[in-house]
Amino acid sequence: MATLNNPSDTRGPLIAASKVNGTSVYNEAGEKLGSVYDVILNKASGRTEYAIMSFGGFLGIGDSYHPLPWQAMRYDERQGGYVVDLDRSRLEGAPSYKVGETGLWDDPQYAHRVSDYYGTPLD
Amino acid sequence: MATLNNPSDTRGPLIAASKVNGTSVYNEAGEKLGSVYDVILNKASGRTEYAIMSFGGFLGIGDSYHPLPWQAMRYDERQGGYVVDLDRSRLEGAPSYKVGETGLWDDPQYAHRVSDYYGTPLD
Repeated sequence: MATLNNPSDTRGPLIAASKVNGTSVYNEAGEKLGSVYDVILNKASGRTEYAIMSFGGFLGIGDSYHPLPWQAMRYDERQGGYVVDLDRSRLEGAPSYKVGETGLWDDPQYAHRVSDYYGTPLD
Repeated sequence: MATLNNPSDTRGPLIAASKVNGTSVYNEAGEKLGSVYDVILNKASGRTEYAIMSFGGFLGIGDSYHPLPWQAMRYDERQGGYVVDLDRSRLEGAPSYKVGETGLWDDPQYAHRVSDYYGTPLD
């Protein structure tokens, strides 16, 4: 049920980016991996390219941020969160960055690394 | 210049949804119309469908929220904001809703009204 006082409340096929942030991310085994920290858009095409998943550590200190290709995620109504096919053991090797390492995004190869890891097409 | 302590900092073709929110919206005459309140995504396709523009009134009371089709906006580096072809005089008649009227989104005709107004294709 939407909160009537929030202009970001949408239903059906649409969702506000601010509502995606904070949503839990689970793996196929139903284990919680983290939650969505932000959504990354392609300015030109308007496509949602990645959800940035964080573990939500205290004040973000020491947190790792995992870019998950949007296409690698599906929304599960039952769990009320996104599901990505990623075992906890594989999470260790998944592309991630820490606070202060956002310069990684400047490297076009970074997008390749992420899409290769999840087996999703590169736009 | 990116703030190195913010994991949402991206450069080049990508931008974090949280960075879009708050960005100014201008018309072609360079008049500020409002600012981006939120970004609305299509869950299934991952497309950015709308930016919700608000006038940023005090505590949002009495504010109107205008859904602007993403395709009707372009980013202008010089102004540091989005530009939409919308005279202030036309803004009056543009589709908008107030706090408590988000039920409008439940009506599929609403998307038609918005795309018709801006002359953008409906996905």
